[in-house]
Amino acid sequence: MENSFEFTDIPEEDLPKATCGDEVKALPVEDLPKLAERIRRTLIRSLSKTGGHLGPNLGVVELSIAMHRVFHTPEDKFVFDVSHQGYVHKMLTGRWDQIDTIRTYQGLNGFLLRTESDHDCYGAGHAGTAVSAALGMAAARDLKGTDEHVVAVAGDAAFTCGPTFEALNNIAATTKKFILVLNDNEWSIDRNVGAVAKYFHALQTSSTFDHIRDKAAGFVEKIAGKGVRGIAHRVEEGAKNLLFPNVLFEKFGLHYYGPIDGHDVDLLVKTFEFLKEQDEPVILHIITEKGRGYEPAKANPMKFHGLGPYKTETGETPPSGKPTYSQIFGQKLGKFASCDEGIVAITAAMPNGTGLVEFQKQVPEKYFDVGIAEEHAALFACGQAVQGLKPFLTIYSTFFQRAYDMAVHDIGIQNLPVRLCMDRAGLSGDDGPTHHGLFDIGYMRHIPNWVLMQAKDEDEFVDMLWTMANYNDGPSAIRYPRGEGVGAEIKAEPQMLEIGKAEIVADGADVALIGLGNMFEMAEQTKAILEEKGYSVALINPRWIKPLDEECLKDFAGKCQVLCTFEDHTLKNGFGAAVIEALHDAGIHTPVERIGWPDEFVEHGKVDILRNKHGMSAETAVKKVLAHLPKRATVAA
Amino acid sequence: MENSFEFTDIPEEDLPKATCGDEVKALPVEDLPKLAERIRRTLIRSLSKTGGHLGPNLGVVELSIAMHRVFHTPEDKFVFDVSHQGYVHKMLTGRWDQIDTIRTYQGLNGFLLRTESDHDCYGAGHAGTAVSAALGMAAARDLKGTDEHVVAVAGDAAFTCGPTFEALNNIAATTKKFILVLNDNEWSIDRNVGAVAKYFHALQTSSTFDHIRDKAAGFVEKIAGKGVRGIAHRVEEGAKNLLFPNVLFEKFGLHYYGPIDGHDVDLLVKTFEFLKEQDEPVILHIITEKGRGYEPAKANPMKFHGLGPYKTETGETPPSGKPTYSQIFGQKLGKFASCDEGIVAITAAMPNGTGLVEFQKQVPEKYFDVGIAEEHAALFACGQAVQGLKPFLTIYSTFFQRAYDMAVHDIGIQNLPVRLCMDRAGLSGDDGPTHHGLFDIGYMRHIPNWVLMQAKDEDEFVDMLWTMANYNDGPSAIRYPRGEGVGAEIKAEPQMLEIGKAEIVADGADVALIGLGNMFEMAEQTKAILEEKGYSVALINPRWIKPLDEECLKDFAGKCQVLCTFEDHTLKNGFGAAVIEALHDAGIHTPVERIGWPDEFVEHGKVDILRNKHGMSAETAVKKVLAHLPKRATVAA
Repeated sequence: MENSFEFTDIPEEDLPKATCGDEVKALPVEDLPKLAERIRRTLIRSLSKTGGHLGPNLGVVELSIAMHRVFHTPEDKFVFDVSHQGYVHKMLTGRWDQIDTIRTYQGLNGFLLRTESDHDCYGAGHAGTAVSAALGMAAARDLKGTDEHVVAVAGDAAFTCGPTFEALNNIAATTKKFILVLNDNEWSIDRNVGAVAKYFHALQTSSTFDHIRDKAAGFVEKIAGKGVRGIAHRVEEGAKNLLFPNVLFEKFGLHYYGPIDGHDVDLLVKTFEFLKEQDEPVILHIITEKGRGYEPAKANPMKFHGLGPYKTETGETPPSGKPTYSQIFGQKLGKFASCDEGIVAITAAMPNGTGLVEFQKQVPEKYFDVGIAEEHAALFACGQAVQGLKPFLTIYSTFFQRAYDMAVHDIGIQNLPVRLCMDRAGLSGDDGPTHHGLFDIGYMRHIPNWVLMQAKDEDEFVDMLWTMANYNDGPSAIRYPRGEGVGAEIKAEPQMLEIGKAEIVADGADVALIGLGNMFEMAEQTKAILEEKGYSVALINPRWIKPLDEECLKDFAGKCQVLCTFEDHTLKNGFGAAVIEALHDAGIHTPVERIGWPDEFVEHGKVDILRNKHGMSAETAVKKVLAHLPKRATVAA
Repeated sequence: MENSFEFTDIPEEDLPKATCGDEVKALPVEDLPKLAERIRRTLIRSLSKTGGHLGPNLGVVELSIAMHRVFHTPEDKFVFDVSHQGYVHKMLTGRWDQIDTIRTYQGLNGFLLRTESDHDCYGAGHAGTAVSAALGMAAARDLKGTDEHVVAVAGDAAFTCGPTFEALNNIAATTKKFILVLNDNEWSIDRNVGAVAKYFHALQTSSTFDHIRDKAAGFVEKIAGKGVRGIAHRVEEGAKNLLFPNVLFEKFGLHYYGPIDGHDVDLLVKTFEFLKEQDEPVILHIITEKGRGYEPAKANPMKFHGLGPYKTETGETPPSGKPTYSQIFGQKLGKFASCDEGIVAITAAMPNGTGLVEFQKQVPEKYFDVGIAEEHAALFACGQAVQGLKPFLTIYSTFFQRAYDMAVHDIGIQNLPVRLCMDRAGLSGDDGPTHHGLFDIGYMRHIPNWVLMQAKDEDEFVDMLWTMANYNDGPSAIRYPRGEGVGAEIKAEPQMLEIGKAEIVADGADVALIGLGNMFEMAEQTKAILEEKGYSVALINPRWIKPLDEECLKDFAGKCQVLCTFEDHTLKNGFGAAVIEALHDAGIHTPVERIGWPDEFVEHGKVDILRNKHGMSAETAVKKVLAHLPKRATVAA
């Protein structure tokens, strides 16, 4: 890594290509860097149109080539942590020519999916699962007496996650044949401040290579000598994340090798050839550069971790439009915190994704980033709440699943006023099933003591945050979608909302449409169509999922012939199900039609495409509602 | 700890007593061991009637005394991990005279509860939460500028848990004033095989005390000299659990002290007085003996971790009656595994609680205990399933909350045939809200791909396990209650059940009673009462929570005037809610009455008492059902 990567003048089509492991193995070894170059050029060009995890994939080009040079998938098992860095693996396993479809509807998924290829033995999207899952595969292999290799690849950020530690604690007792690659690039999504830097410092100044066994000493010293020289200087910046000394890996029963240059494909190949022959679990520590080969990505690794389309030449992305919910969240919460001593905010390694970077700018002393560690984040919030603070625990809906026990056992049972802010609730779109936030009403609504809400627009969202800031009687949670809202103007001063009180936007006598949160817009569209057809349509913004405004529901169920709920959530155990349950218990049997997601894992793609595919549209709602209404003469347009 | 603890001949009432921190502080220091003796005698006598966590509490008598001697609650914060070892703390904070009510209805809870005392700043019941929560309190203190002490007490088993690691990773960045006590007794619930033993070996043979700073050297050497000499010999037995070298604690920014004798109250007091003055986070490693002072408990630490009433003189417990679901589970699954190569079983440190100890006896090579690490356990099962094995992942309903993300992200999305066996589903009784399994239908039913079931008796339970063993199309889960079943005879050979097909036990025309799992018995009782009143009563054993037998439901909803569901689960998002949702979607509006738990955290107590209190009885069901039926002449008895 002494020299920054530079492209040659060779035309792309003259560079070698390999679309399967056998082709990687068939290339002359000196052609492997050229294969790497072609892959990089392809990625930079393709992703400029589709968007995607460019930076991480540019960082693992040589690693992926070396793995396919030495091992044989699908017999050998590669388990990539998070698996956002699996694009190169996809290209080298039959999907090179589809890489330009990545993250698009019916194209390749942006993560690994078992259903996409036999070479993808394990999918992911959340961090910290690879070591455990790979260990299960190794245990099964040992039990069956087969001899395939299992290689887990995990980034440095995986080592802030509880599950990774739990797995490390079990390696020695589980298997003697296991390869863990620590792909160390100093970044998770945002920067891993200082931790890895400190670690390198320790490795380079201490007796790193004392642990190399005699039998391998000659070979590995050669490797090590070459690798270590190239490590770039890194600045110590703090101690937020994990220091993982090699001596500890040894204690866990993992023989430690490294650190080596993760962009030296020849070195990687030789190292894997050596490691695959070892009869003990090993960890190979490689140093890679996120965005390798693309200056804009190297210059801004956070942005290029994952992004939408960009200009190939400059890395520029189109200017953003309306502010996102995340941005509004960070700005407004920071403003509130400036005036309210109690407010603090916690993120699990997502200062940018959650918008808390804006909060941090305003009140840095009240901002806590704990790394990818959702369980700790939730418990930490509990401790703060015990002391009378007002913690805003900010975690994506899908990632909060990691802290589910804390929602029950710690926050719920103790009735602690933790404020849970679930960003990316609802369909996440391009990221696909591992990132959709379609289950949070299902997993939260039955937990006693919680208040649960969703706003119809940005202004009400800020009112809800303000209400949460001033609600101290127990836990509260808000769910809000990825991306922009409808563009509602935000009042200068927020107002308190009455808990459990729905907003009746329009009265009506035939049908009541109940549009939760970002689905309120579809309820409005449905209203317009039904009114054109001559019906009297009530429109309700429920605001509260729990407690439900049962009086309001009963009132409209009493006077209308049908209700229709709209939710960006799975129908089972969802908002509409709660409405049905409440009305049923009240002895009211007015039909409730429901618009929401089906009982299946929804694929990736643009939100509009997927909504239409799954019958989530105003037209479908109209059709469902009309089945319960008498025909009526259409009002003249 | 050189000599085993022995009681004096002093009559119990002549030994000193202390019911609050001030009284602990007022005693002459030489009386503290006598106070410890009186506490032990009280615990042994009281718990012989109520049952409880005797062993762990006998182990922390001196620790608890020393903490209350040095610190001042409620200003200073004590956070006990799991908090099953909080009995002595309770006695020393105003609850001495209520200790004989522990775990009984309206008596003291067996864990810490914030609602029970101001001195209980944090409750628990699940492992691994203390360090994070305490760290949150310390962060809040630092932000507020107050100066209370925060002391977290965690057992060695907490260090196999992901959340504890996540917390350790954040200590240095969070606070400079934090005391963590590692209460090391080599046991979690079952034995922590070998890990701590190895650790001690390392500590005693290496330069343990090199890390003591100069300024403290004299003082701590004295402590250390005394403490280390007394450490009992421990045998190395393997490497299953965590080795946590002091050097690592130092890397995490925790200054390490120890190990010292955790039964030397004078030493503990002096150590805490020293540690409270330190301006950096510290960890104090103490060695304690589970069951200290009571030979039966020392001789059988697993049994005396937590148990029911026993004879004080001998520790004998009444002979057990019918086999429990757990015992049947372990025996039968072992039998199946002997004939089916694919079957393996995983526990998270609960071989006895889950009954898997019986499985292990039969097929030791197919048994995996991963420590208290539910996330790893679930991921490990996924890896095994990928390789074609049939993993039975055996975790209590309440503890599976820890692996909730894996139920969605790994098992669900990938549709892996992991078999989840949720023991202790339903009310757990004496243990209280942290252990009740009342939410699993709520958190599981909306996850696509899962099949979810519950058996009405032991025989059907075995049929279901057999069905799961032979179901490879995706994930399946079974919930079953704590303790004994109804005593049904188990067939010699299990039979396959048809998935999604309910059992119609009795036909009827007025009302259909649908009794899920262990609540089937109450449905039977309800049937008898209603029949006496002259009604025609159908009785259905639904078997499947997902997929529901919708045809069966529709059929009975069509011919009966009312349905009534019975479930050992919270009503919200529960089984009855699923029935209502399914019928509503089918356009059928027959009333469905529901018997189940309310939307509140249910307290501790005997199951019968709590069911009656919360309206879960045949009589309540009869009353609810009759509201929908015409009066009918009573049949002559």
